[in-house]
Amino acid sequence: MSFNIDLSYIRSVIFKMMPPAAQLTRLEFEGPEIAVYVKNPQFLLEQGDIVSQIAKLIKKRIVIRTDPSIRKQGKEVIEYIKSVVPAEAGIESIELDEVLGEVVIKARNTQLVEEKANQILVYTGWRPKIIRSPPMRSRVYEEIMSGYLSESDYRLKFLRALGEAIHRDVLLAKNGSNYVRLTFLGAAQEVGRSAVLVETAESKILLDFGLNPGRGLSPNAFPRIDLIGIDPEDIDAVIVTHAHLDHAGLVPYLFKYGFNGAVYMTEATRDLTTLLLKDFLEVTEREGVEPPFSLRDVEKMLLHTVALKYNVVTDIAPDIRLTLYNAGHILGSAIVHLHIGNGFHNIVYTGDLKFGKTRLLDRADYEFPRVDTIIMESTYGATDQPRREEAENELLKIVLDTYNKGGKVLIPTLSVGRAQEVMVILADAMRQGKIPKIPVYIEGMVHEVTAIHTAYPDLLSKDLGKRLRGGENPFDFETFVRLEGREPRTEIVESPQQAIIIASSGMLTGGPAVEYFKLMAPNPNNSMIFVNYQVEGTLGRRIRDGAREIAFVNEKGKVEILRVKMQVYSIEGFSGHSDRHQLLDYLRHVQPKPSRIILVHGEKNAIASLANEVEKRRKFLGIGDATVLTPNLLDSVTLAYNM
Amino acid sequence: MSFNIDLSYIRSVIFKMMPPAAQLTRLEFEGPEIAVYVKNPQFLLEQGDIVSQIAKLIKKRIVIRTDPSIRKQGKEVIEYIKSVVPAEAGIESIELDEVLGEVVIKARNTQLVEEKANQILVYTGWRPKIIRSPPMRSRVYEEIMSGYLSESDYRLKFLRALGEAIHRDVLLAKNGSNYVRLTFLGAAQEVGRSAVLVETAESKILLDFGLNPGRGLSPNAFPRIDLIGIDPEDIDAVIVTHAHLDHAGLVPYLFKYGFNGAVYMTEATRDLTTLLLKDFLEVTEREGVEPPFSLRDVEKMLLHTVALKYNVVTDIAPDIRLTLYNAGHILGSAIVHLHIGNGFHNIVYTGDLKFGKTRLLDRADYEFPRVDTIIMESTYGATDQPRREEAENELLKIVLDTYNKGGKVLIPTLSVGRAQEVMVILADAMRQGKIPKIPVYIEGMVHEVTAIHTAYPDLLSKDLGKRLRGGENPFDFETFVRLEGREPRTEIVESPQQAIIIASSGMLTGGPAVEYFKLMAPNPNNSMIFVNYQVEGTLGRRIRDGAREIAFVNEKGKVEILRVKMQVYSIEGFSGHSDRHQLLDYLRHVQPKPSRIILVHGEKNAIASLANEVEKRRKFLGIGDATVLTPNLLDSVTLAYNM
Repeated sequence: MSFNIDLSYIRSVIFKMMPPAAQLTRLEFEGPEIAVYVKNPQFLLEQGDIVSQIAKLIKKRIVIRTDPSIRKQGKEVIEYIKSVVPAEAGIESIELDEVLGEVVIKARNTQLVEEKANQILVYTGWRPKIIRSPPMRSRVYEEIMSGYLSESDYRLKFLRALGEAIHRDVLLAKNGSNYVRLTFLGAAQEVGRSAVLVETAESKILLDFGLNPGRGLSPNAFPRIDLIGIDPEDIDAVIVTHAHLDHAGLVPYLFKYGFNGAVYMTEATRDLTTLLLKDFLEVTEREGVEPPFSLRDVEKMLLHTVALKYNVVTDIAPDIRLTLYNAGHILGSAIVHLHIGNGFHNIVYTGDLKFGKTRLLDRADYEFPRVDTIIMESTYGATDQPRREEAENELLKIVLDTYNKGGKVLIPTLSVGRAQEVMVILADAMRQGKIPKIPVYIEGMVHEVTAIHTAYPDLLSKDLGKRLRGGENPFDFETFVRLEGREPRTEIVESPQQAIIIASSGMLTGGPAVEYFKLMAPNPNNSMIFVNYQVEGTLGRRIRDGAREIAFVNEKGKVEILRVKMQVYSIEGFSGHSDRHQLLDYLRHVQPKPSRIILVHGEKNAIASLANEVEKRRKFLGIGDATVLTPNLLDSVTLAYNM
Repeated sequence: MSFNIDLSYIRSVIFKMMPPAAQLTRLEFEGPEIAVYVKNPQFLLEQGDIVSQIAKLIKKRIVIRTDPSIRKQGKEVIEYIKSVVPAEAGIESIELDEVLGEVVIKARNTQLVEEKANQILVYTGWRPKIIRSPPMRSRVYEEIMSGYLSESDYRLKFLRALGEAIHRDVLLAKNGSNYVRLTFLGAAQEVGRSAVLVETAESKILLDFGLNPGRGLSPNAFPRIDLIGIDPEDIDAVIVTHAHLDHAGLVPYLFKYGFNGAVYMTEATRDLTTLLLKDFLEVTEREGVEPPFSLRDVEKMLLHTVALKYNVVTDIAPDIRLTLYNAGHILGSAIVHLHIGNGFHNIVYTGDLKFGKTRLLDRADYEFPRVDTIIMESTYGATDQPRREEAENELLKIVLDTYNKGGKVLIPTLSVGRAQEVMVILADAMRQGKIPKIPVYIEGMVHEVTAIHTAYPDLLSKDLGKRLRGGENPFDFETFVRLEGREPRTEIVESPQQAIIIASSGMLTGGPAVEYFKLMAPNPNNSMIFVNYQVEGTLGRRIRDGAREIAFVNEKGKVEILRVKMQVYSIEGFSGHSDRHQLLDYLRHVQPKPSRIILVHGEKNAIASLANEVEKRRKFLGIGDATVLTPNLLDSVTLAYNM
């Protein structure tokens, strides 16, 4: 019923298998990993294989760390690295982390550094941590990295405490009693405030913890953890599927109210989420709204984050193993697989899912070791989307038409994902001469996000990754202009030069997109193109649904009516979500077949319609008599129990 | 969304409508009622109607209490009552409750006292509380009554505090946000540990709180309130449907762990539950098992109990109104109707349900003011039962056969309900000469329960009630013998005289039935007749299912194998539960039609089978597209929400 991790077994395997010459001094937990401290890392050069053999046997990741006594002086270390790594690696910086005994090497070509890693460790006594230096520089990315370096002490303490918590013996599940119970704290019959609580006899894990952007900052915009008698401090871990506010937006809020556990996500999600949250804080501050958490909480979140790669199994609790898979939705987006209690139950939580190739990403993974319950998003459960090429052609046509009228195009986008998708399309179209080479203005936030994209070529589609690694920047073109401040907006809008503006937020809930909208709306030659889903309750949704008179509070505090004369378009085919056909196709592909399908993250109609379709097409989908559930807010479902 | 009880309105109505001559001095909450203190109750004789007019207007029950200054001396009061009430009333005792200003009059014919009630109040200044003195005396019943008298002070304080809590203004539901959520803490896919938590934005109410008698006293025998982050002190009230351990058995346990709210049930359920719980404590003590609560907790439960009559609407929380209806299952058994938040949602919880007439009771009520969700028991969801007459004939035939072989009959029964049913059948059969007039030995506990039955003729079937009120005792016959101690058991079993023994427990989980079973099992001329449901895990279930070698720990602490040679019968038709046909029939009759049907209190197969049948027969049942749910343990279902 439980893993019952046998620590003495792990210990004895490591002590027996490590070469005596390594001079092992101690073992430490570091979060889900085991740090093996040695006085003589020389063995790595001859018997490097032994580490992965041990790791395989004990089913744990191992980090070899050096005893502080053998670490060489900083100057010597830097000189050695520079001498041994070829210049083509493009090393940009070398920094020492005294706490961990790591040397952080930032390079444009990480592969060339990687090849010398063991050699550097053995010679200098410092463990290389190799970081990609992306073609576009991201301020946030750099802040995160230097944050980890300066808070290395706190971080190590946290990881050791986390390691102890993960590897403790099971308590309650020992007598064979166990259970797995889900509670839907949000995103049930709605899009927004995604949050699923997973409880077992041993653990409480949150899958996402976002806000509903259509509901301001009222209690009903938050996952209703306040109503189920659980304090944030009772939660063991949060798993964030991807960097959108409706999934990740309130993780720092948990820290503010006492959460002290780990946050698991991919590196890209970590970076993008940090960026989004900082922007969220700036926007709320600018609007004079009390934010639900502070920058300190965001920083604490970062220090408690354990970044994971796709397809790597990680222990996150005494009875739970986590694996992240590509979800195809945005950069770093993950499908969560939980293996609970040695086969007691297996959960797949799709987060937001794209089961189709986009410009940015490959389609979502669908093969898992085991699946009992799948929790699937249903955003487009009721509708099919136009094909991608049609959507691209429509976008280019509107751009061309607006150009011919002498107008400008505003594309409000989610800064993460859709903006980059549009940028790649526009850049390629201009390169290929399909549209004129006019300025494309990109606001700072979108630019930051794009820069982060360039740091993770491995997470992008095979095609984009290859172009990036080959030195090309597919997100850029000669007419692209990065905007830093707010000043030139009026100039841009009033200039006779046709242009395209890409700005967030994608649902006009705030940010520069709203400012541009106000400036551009009165001119009937201008166009606004929505390229993403518009959540109920947002300004974007109202305009998409036909509203043409919008009340604003102007700078003098008075209400002003804005008459929308610009053309408003909504192109559906760019979605990072699967449409109905793709959702069904995903269920048809997913392996092995689940016995329970739970539909979340969709408006009431979308979920009902999808559930109905799934019921009708059981045979085609190959799901046998699997139960189909469409939970309401606060519903709890016990997936398995023995008690 | 909520009742928003307007206290100033209530206050002003009472002050305006009460005759000035009454000399109103103050108003007090007493639990769900309002106590109106007057200096001059004279008006009751001329304008008694005014009280019910006010009650109707403010939708509150009103108790007229007198100002202590006008209460006459005890001796004078007793003399006055004796002089004014006719001798045929059979007054047995008159006691004064100084705290409440009540005079407790115990009489055989309560009607004759009732007629003089106002007169007594006006003349003596003491409010008469009239209690039925039953033909059979029950020790427990008398203990309860004297307990209330001696703890009157605590009781009044509790009721006033409860009154304040019930009539407080709504807090959270004020802004229109509310929700109704059920959590199944037990009796989900099982029979036993019934407990449903009902949560709203304002209140937390438990429907039943029983144990699973088939699971000893392990955590898995208890409702799993420990796993949902709610402390007993957070609960506002418990509603107990009827006096069986699997519904009422752990209410004192809640008090032990901090529950401080009200317990609602019928008077008969209160008396029977008290008896059962005291017996439970004695049995656990005798067996050397640590009980989960103490006698003090049972007493506290009694002091916190608000006894309700069928069909009377009672406020139990700022946003919840409760009405109990006849459930037809055992004496005092109730169907719970909850009206939440002024029409926001209406719940019917059947508890255990008999939709068919029995010897003891009329069939369950099925008409309600409103129904959105019905939670129905499913004990016999998979099986139809023989007709009642067949069951009775079968019982009498076995008795006769055993008599002819010179053997004895053991009928293990639930002390509440089934025993009395069997007693009425045997008494009538002997009266009519259908079986010989042999001794029927009745153990003390069963006798106590029977005595309580005779105290509530209004709760029994019309027929039995009439016989009782007419002075007959239908539970008795000349050959019936009440046993007090344990001593004569061996004598009875070894005597050559044929006999019938009625003893609890009905599932052979303990009590005298097990002692008789051990003594009688070796004789093949003896018979044992099960007349009630055998829960999984009980000795009764094992024997019913064919076990004929039973291991016991004997008095010397050694394991002994008992070979069962007696005849074992199981007669299904006596059930106080509806069989499958009756359950379906109940759904067909229930008015108005619910939009959600939740099946609980049945083994997995029974529930699945019933759910399947309900789905198949939607049209016949007239339930349209109502949702049918079969929750697992710890499942939560949000019935309605606006948040």
